[in-house]
Amino acid sequence: MPALSDGQPVGIVGLGLIGGSLGLDLQAAGFEVRGLVHRESTALRARERGLASSIGTDPSLLQGCGLVVLALPLDRLLAPDPSLLAALPGAAVLTDVGSVKGPLLARWRELLLGVGRREQLGRFVPGHPMAGTASAGVEAGQPGLFRGRPWVATPDGDTDPEALALVRELAERVGARWFSCAAADHDRAVALISHLPVLVGAALLAAADRAGASTGVGALARFLASSGFADTTRVGGGNPELGTLMARTNRQALLQALAAYRRELDDLEALVAGERWSELEGRLGAAQALRPAYLGADPPTGGQGPAVDDSPAAAT
Amino acid sequence: MPALSDGQPVGIVGLGLIGGSLGLDLQAAGFEVRGLVHRESTALRARERGLASSIGTDPSLLQGCGLVVLALPLDRLLAPDPSLLAALPGAAVLTDVGSVKGPLLARWRELLLGVGRREQLGRFVPGHPMAGTASAGVEAGQPGLFRGRPWVATPDGDTDPEALALVRELAERVGARWFSCAAADHDRAVALISHLPVLVGAALLAAADRAGASTGVGALARFLASSGFADTTRVGGGNPELGTLMARTNRQALLQALAAYRRELDDLEALVAGERWSELEGRLGAAQALRPAYLGADPPTGGQGPAVDDSPAAAT
Repeated sequence: MPALSDGQPVGIVGLGLIGGSLGLDLQAAGFEVRGLVHRESTALRARERGLASSIGTDPSLLQGCGLVVLALPLDRLLAPDPSLLAALPGAAVLTDVGSVKGPLLARWRELLLGVGRREQLGRFVPGHPMAGTASAGVEAGQPGLFRGRPWVATPDGDTDPEALALVRELAERVGARWFSCAAADHDRAVALISHLPVLVGAALLAAADRAGASTGVGALARFLASSGFADTTRVGGGNPELGTLMARTNRQALLQALAAYRRELDDLEALVAGERWSELEGRLGAAQALRPAYLGADPPTGGQGPAVDDSPAAAT
Repeated sequence: MPALSDGQPVGIVGLGLIGGSLGLDLQAAGFEVRGLVHRESTALRARERGLASSIGTDPSLLQGCGLVVLALPLDRLLAPDPSLLAALPGAAVLTDVGSVKGPLLARWRELLLGVGRREQLGRFVPGHPMAGTASAGVEAGQPGLFRGRPWVATPDGDTDPEALALVRELAERVGARWFSCAAADHDRAVALISHLPVLVGAALLAAADRAGASTGVGALARFLASSGFADTTRVGGGNPELGTLMARTNRQALLQALAAYRRELDDLEALVAGERWSELEGRLGAAQALRPAYLGADPPTGGQGPAVDDSPAAAT
């Protein structure tokens, strides 16, 4: 099993926000990084930006890499190019950056089995660096993107502990805050804090537009909208392909989150309709008290992760 | 009828974010500003900050002011101190800064009639400078707060056009973008873009907390929450007294906004439940296309305001 520092290069597939940032940080830490991209024009620009030590469009450049990071958008992670799959070094640890983990782990086990790589199954480590999606593409990578941000892995009983430790080493090298948990828990949590807000904000934009138009105050509402409306709708007004893909791959957890949200909204509406003002103030006060816990929280302690020892010491 | 520049001082009641900022800008423009505050300690600090030319706690300092801006929180605007009411100069134009206009206009007409000031009714001009509520108190005032921001007045047929023109002059002096419309239209518009987002965000915080706890992923959700969750919940995690007061004073419009919101959310949920992904992508694409129109929109043109000529020329 390779260690990150044993001289083998690190491969990165895709040099967008995540892959490009990782390439910059790993090179700064002294590693050789090989970057695989889809188009020659992207390769040219990625070379100009110095996103990896060597960059190309031929998957064979991954040969010899001890660790390959699949830094592709979720749709391409779920349906990767067969030539990419064939070119992945059989001895390498593989990890991805997709924002939904259960379906991705199942899909990659299926893919690896399909090309006769049963021995590599345990070395596929599902990962999710939480580092923003506002920008994308070859211009988006930046140094220090992962510093202080969560990097979650979702191993299960079949995951090779040494492979997990290698990915942890990678995440910690770039300053991320490591945590491992079950894929289903990850997916339930991101449904609540990442996928539900997309629908919440999109519904708000649609409601303001439709109700504004039907009551003749649409232009006035747009004129009066301030930073509060802008902030509340920022993710709801984001990339529709990405929002749909997240909903599609995390459908069950998102529907449960929507049901929970609807109950809370029903309660608030009933308090307004019933003029139960002190109760409404109590609910809004509870919301105010809750919010700081969601800003820069520490990793959970105790009992949430599966029973896999992923400390670097365990892998030596 | 006074003009802003005729040498009469401008009175400001309350030197918080709105009143303090206004005091700074008006003094910079060469006006004498008299600031009335509630507590002596506030007066001391407001003097140190130079928020007005003269500052005190005795309402009689408003005597001689041609224009008095009631820059108080909404609850104090709806139930002002009787001593304040008695001290308002009878010949002055009065304007306020409350975020709900219909109930406020009705309340102040009632108040003015109650103290025998029938002749002043038309000189009460309901106003709403849209300039943020994130900070409050005597430290919050800042120069240039109103520059480029909307300042809405909601006159009706009983409003004195010269009083309206004076308030418009005030708003434009500090760089605000003036607009006048019916109070009911203002209240419907702010229900959509300001009051509804409070409940939308508060419900999201409550849902993440409750569903996170019941499925055991609460701590994980807090750890993984990023800027998207923080932005979506910013106003929902705001001041509960203010949120309740807005709901209370704008209840009908807020209930209508909530009903419109629920319809949109129902639609999105049905698309996810029914796996109608291309329709979902269409809806999210529409939301993405809508959002830029809410960022820095121009004032509405044509037909939305009541038939009051509020151009400064009309008052000369």
